[in-house]
Amino acid sequence: MSDLRIAVLGVGLMGADHVARITSRISGARVAVVNDYVAEKAEQVAVGIPGCRAIADPLDAIADPDVDAVVLATPGPTHEKQLLACLEHRKPVLCEKPLTTDVDTSLEVVRREAELGTRLIQVGFMRRFDDEYAGLKALLDGGELGSPLVLHCVHRNPAVPDHFDSVMTVRDSLVHEVDVTRFLFGEEITSIQIVTPTTNPAAREGLFDPQIAIMRTAGGKHVDVELFVTTGVAYEVRTELVAEKGSAMIGLDVGLVRKSAPGTWGGTITPSFKERFGRAYDTEIQRWVDAVQSGGTTGIYTDGPTAWDGYAATAVCEAGVQALQSGQPVAVDMVDRASIPGA
Amino acid sequence: MSDLRIAVLGVGLMGADHVARITSRISGARVAVVNDYVAEKAEQVAVGIPGCRAIADPLDAIADPDVDAVVLATPGPTHEKQLLACLEHRKPVLCEKPLTTDVDTSLEVVRREAELGTRLIQVGFMRRFDDEYAGLKALLDGGELGSPLVLHCVHRNPAVPDHFDSVMTVRDSLVHEVDVTRFLFGEEITSIQIVTPTTNPAAREGLFDPQIAIMRTAGGKHVDVELFVTTGVAYEVRTELVAEKGSAMIGLDVGLVRKSAPGTWGGTITPSFKERFGRAYDTEIQRWVDAVQSGGTTGIYTDGPTAWDGYAATAVCEAGVQALQSGQPVAVDMVDRASIPGA
Amino acid sequence: MSDLRIAVLGVGLMGADHVARITSRISGARVAVVNDYVAEKAEQVAVGIPGCRAIADPLDAIADPDVDAVVLATPGPTHEKQLLACLEHRKPVLCEKPLTTDVDTSLEVVRREAELGTRLIQVGFMRRFDDEYAGLKALLDGGELGSPLVLHCVHRNPAVPDHFDSVMTVRDSLVHEVDVTRFLFGEEITSIQIVTPTTNPAAREGLFDPQIAIMRTAGGKHVDVELFVTTGVAYEVRTELVAEKGSAMIGLDVGLVRKSAPGTWGGTITPSFKERFGRAYDTEIQRWVDAVQSGGTTGIYTDGPTAWDGYAATAVCEAGVQALQSGQPVAVDMVDRASIPGA
Amino acid sequence: MSDLRIAVLGVGLMGADHVARITSRISGARVAVVNDYVAEKAEQVAVGIPGCRAIADPLDAIADPDVDAVVLATPGPTHEKQLLACLEHRKPVLCEKPLTTDVDTSLEVVRREAELGTRLIQVGFMRRFDDEYAGLKALLDGGELGSPLVLHCVHRNPAVPDHFDSVMTVRDSLVHEVDVTRFLFGEEITSIQIVTPTTNPAAREGLFDPQIAIMRTAGGKHVDVELFVTTGVAYEVRTELVAEKGSAMIGLDVGLVRKSAPGTWGGTITPSFKERFGRAYDTEIQRWVDAVQSGGTTGIYTDGPTAWDGYAATAVCEAGVQALQSGQPVAVDMVDRASIPGA
Repeated sequence: MSDLRIAVLGVGLMGADHVARITSRISGARVAVVNDYVAEKAEQVAVGIPGCRAIADPLDAIADPDVDAVVLATPGPTHEKQLLACLEHRKPVLCEKPLTTDVDTSLEVVRREAELGTRLIQVGFMRRFDDEYAGLKALLDGGELGSPLVLHCVHRNPAVPDHFDSVMTVRDSLVHEVDVTRFLFGEEITSIQIVTPTTNPAAREGLFDPQIAIMRTAGGKHVDVELFVTTGVAYEVRTELVAEKGSAMIGLDVGLVRKSAPGTWGGTITPSFKERFGRAYDTEIQRWVDAVQSGGTTGIYTDGPTAWDGYAATAVCEAGVQALQSGQPVAVDMVDRASIPGA
Repeated sequence: MSDLRIAVLGVGLMGADHVARITSRISGARVAVVNDYVAEKAEQVAVGIPGCRAIADPLDAIADPDVDAVVLATPGPTHEKQLLACLEHRKPVLCEKPLTTDVDTSLEVVRREAELGTRLIQVGFMRRFDDEYAGLKALLDGGELGSPLVLHCVHRNPAVPDHFDSVMTVRDSLVHEVDVTRFLFGEEITSIQIVTPTTNPAAREGLFDPQIAIMRTAGGKHVDVELFVTTGVAYEVRTELVAEKGSAMIGLDVGLVRKSAPGTWGGTITPSFKERFGRAYDTEIQRWVDAVQSGGTTGIYTDGPTAWDGYAATAVCEAGVQALQSGQPVAVDMVDRASIPGA
Repeated sequence: MSDLRIAVLGVGLMGADHVARITSRISGARVAVVNDYVAEKAEQVAVGIPGCRAIADPLDAIADPDVDAVVLATPGPTHEKQLLACLEHRKPVLCEKPLTTDVDTSLEVVRREAELGTRLIQVGFMRRFDDEYAGLKALLDGGELGSPLVLHCVHRNPAVPDHFDSVMTVRDSLVHEVDVTRFLFGEEITSIQIVTPTTNPAAREGLFDPQIAIMRTAGGKHVDVELFVTTGVAYEVRTELVAEKGSAMIGLDVGLVRKSAPGTWGGTITPSFKERFGRAYDTEIQRWVDAVQSGGTTGIYTDGPTAWDGYAATAVCEAGVQALQSGQPVAVDMVDRASIPGA
Repeated sequence: MSDLRIAVLGVGLMGADHVARITSRISGARVAVVNDYVAEKAEQVAVGIPGCRAIADPLDAIADPDVDAVVLATPGPTHEKQLLACLEHRKPVLCEKPLTTDVDTSLEVVRREAELGTRLIQVGFMRRFDDEYAGLKALLDGGELGSPLVLHCVHRNPAVPDHFDSVMTVRDSLVHEVDVTRFLFGEEITSIQIVTPTTNPAAREGLFDPQIAIMRTAGGKHVDVELFVTTGVAYEVRTELVAEKGSAMIGLDVGLVRKSAPGTWGGTITPSFKERFGRAYDTEIQRWVDAVQSGGTTGIYTDGPTAWDGYAATAVCEAGVQALQSGQPVAVDMVDRASIPGA
């Protein structure tokens, strides 16, 4: 199967990150086209990627016959037009949040996609793909905790840019917990209240921070979210689900922690080396591939364990086998590495 | 740059896992050739991968001009011959441990590669690529903990196959801690002792389990390893580094935990969304690419957030902005999803 | 100094616990008088305690010249009258919460004590004496976290008796967080809101459970409390303080955990054996005293380490000293315990 | 029952601590006699305690008819003589470790007590009375973990005095793990080996530090102990028990953590307020008793919650009950505290 040819629209912070991701870590796809409202920025990005062109007009990029799919990382106000173009050209599109900047245009996009009768739009709520959130969802869906009742969320940033205002706390930060709530509970949110306590002395004047959002779902579940974007500490995102038969928390830097009857708390140990070291194998192979690709077949450089490392391990294990038999300390017998130039 | 064409030799448990990894999650490479001493197994695997052939003889596979690099997942006793063939054909090779099964052949491989004057062999000690081990190494190299003194390791398996014997505990389990020790300390192991306490009643007769390995390095550092392969619990791999100015532990299911002056313990919070959700973005994009690839441009299926999810988030945030201004609970206004067939 | 002679009024669950506490674990005090509205219950308790009498009328007990101080563990509706009697007789009194059952009588008690010009009443908000709450208060007062902004509380019971209703959740459970808020922040609570999500299916009909209390203090601080009394899990009381320069959490079964710049989380290790084993010493001595008291001087029973345990430790350490010098395993030389009848 | 009259011999660091403990926190006992080889030190201590005398000769103190029991906190070399005197006078004695300083005299003490046919000596291995060790012992004895196999111990001090030498690491530090091993396993230690890795650069010259003790019990169980007394960090004492069906660890600053099938780790949540706040109640009452004792009946000072605190809690809960009924925020109605002088 040939690589999916993707157009990335918008190569700011988020878009550039996606370009790097698709180019270096994603299998089966490549960035074929980039676009940005600052044309030079797109040109610069394109130069660094084999087989990639910059196209000045985003709608041209979408329509381009050599583009199979689109990643939208443009500013929110341009989303509606670009999404409708993707629908028109039947191009699958991954759209960074928000879908659009207001509810009417969002609804219009929904309607137009529904009329096509095909699902082409995915919105970039990435938390659904996080191991901890996925684990929490699986735990909930497994039924072990019974009916969910309450969700406590914490969303903390160490700092925000100067232009960040109180409304952005709702639109840009809370929006993630809105999706998490809907993802976990599978029901719509029906009301919302925002409490603004005395503001952090360290916050910029005029910014309400922290804010506390209190939401209720169609099924009567309660959600509270502490939004605090000037903590000075770190990026902390925490979610505690409280349910009929127990509770579970993620984002506490210790994996998913569950509390359940009969009065125990704890987590899960990885059952096998695949779960424990699966990602390490991915990283090992990707780095080795990158090293081979960049090094050619003569004289590659790898940052991984060398033949000498393999020899040393064998030598120690051989002594270990003797030690197992004798019960006594055994000296490890190895040649001097310096005696083999190049080893 | 065109994809690296890899030959995977041996498609048992480990090799098949590498085939799937390279095919689905690794960027810039593809499996071009597979080989197994059970020829039909290789054939079956090849059929499922576009552009992949099975080659019956491993040495032919290595020599094949359409193979750029080799992954060795064959049984240990065949490694020497296959590694030397890779060297002869100047093919970069990632060799699953052990390098070879005895110290003399391992040393011969080291010598032959050294004579070539180019680094072609990487050994599959994947722990070096694990985030926690890499973090521990970085912490140590950063100098904050001062000189390392002692390493306590635990290596536990829930169970082992029937053919697993006491020597395999040393050769197949301890070998990882041997490499971890050398990786972290950057010095060779000079002696080893194995203590065999009373054996676990649940272990198969004849198997010494647990075993305690006690090692000393060239620089006089102490390493102890509990090897216990019939715990019945889970796969637990833990490493505690004790150094001059503090200690740090990984594998406790809670990330890297550090103890240091003045009497504090703890870990690090992810500084930004990139560290916290970077992997989630990778997963998001990879799944979306896979969905588009398998779905075509009409009627793709995605398991990700839909346009409706985007609309709902916008509707809640819009109500949230009103709630921020009023301080009162605000009802969320949304159309009935059922009124839009296909949404 | 002679022991403080205490009258315990009310010997139900709480009062009986206090009687046992004062009799067995508190230095410098003894229970001189007990009283209960069920006279026989008080008689039974008195019989088991040397020098303790039952007095049928609580006001007589308070007035008794051989009573130095009073512990009130009677039902709330009787508190007003009993507290006023304590004030009249100038008897220090520790009053289990609530002070009284309504705000007018509580205020009257405050006024009467204030008129006396002497502090005689302490209310039984015991959390202020808990190590974790005291530690949180000390951390906050130390200034390291800056201004406090938000308090998140969780108060969970596995189950409640059949007569427990929604109002008791507020009066009997929330009251502790009310005091914790005032204790930590040192300011009054000015408004309160209660959210009642869909009720736990496992809760008795008619009980709103969980309830979410949302409070605001005079200084504009936000407090939210999840009150959930039918979790089926355990007794969980958790408090997270969010402040200008960091946050701290207690009640997570892991001591006080702090999050602060530059992006770290963690706790404190006990600095010396006094902090680590101080309570163990207390327990050791108290149990030894109890054993001696109950055993007399001939043939005491202790559950503690015996002379043989002391001998065995000496024998192992002596071998250890040899092992330190030789570096080799040393057999421990001990006589056969059976050779010393009675050892 | 009258208070047990205790003679404390030796009022150095440890003895003075026991004097304070018995005087302030232990019920049913008082310090009647103190002794020290520095007579003035004993005199000074005696002056501060009602009814306490200093006696210059330790044997006179033991023999004194007004002494019911003895706490030995004198230097180890004097223990033998003093213990034999306690036996002669049939005085129960709590002897700080070591029992005596060599194995022959220890054995002699064991024999002499055995000949008496009564148990009078308890050795001060206080860890047996620590909640975590007791919990670990209970878990093991409960059978849930199956046969114990291995014990990993860590014993770390931030620093030691200048006179502390390598032998004291064995005699004074390791001795605790020796007793812990015997306490947990209920069997004798039969051999010991000490490994001395390269010494911590921060340690005083001549001190081997860390030391690793490797012990084996009569039943073939393995114990290893890292002894490291110049960590510069804190006092860390950790014990991990590895058994047939799971493992458990204490001393990790997070209570007892258990790992067991099917692949879970975790701890126990306090089942009720008694376990969670039992110690807080003890502290509350002890401090109140102390405050009353020191304040007399007019004008006592308490650091506990006052009548005003009780009034404020009632006022908030009353508003809370209204809020429960209305679902709306309710302002809390309280009088101005300043309007009540003395409140």
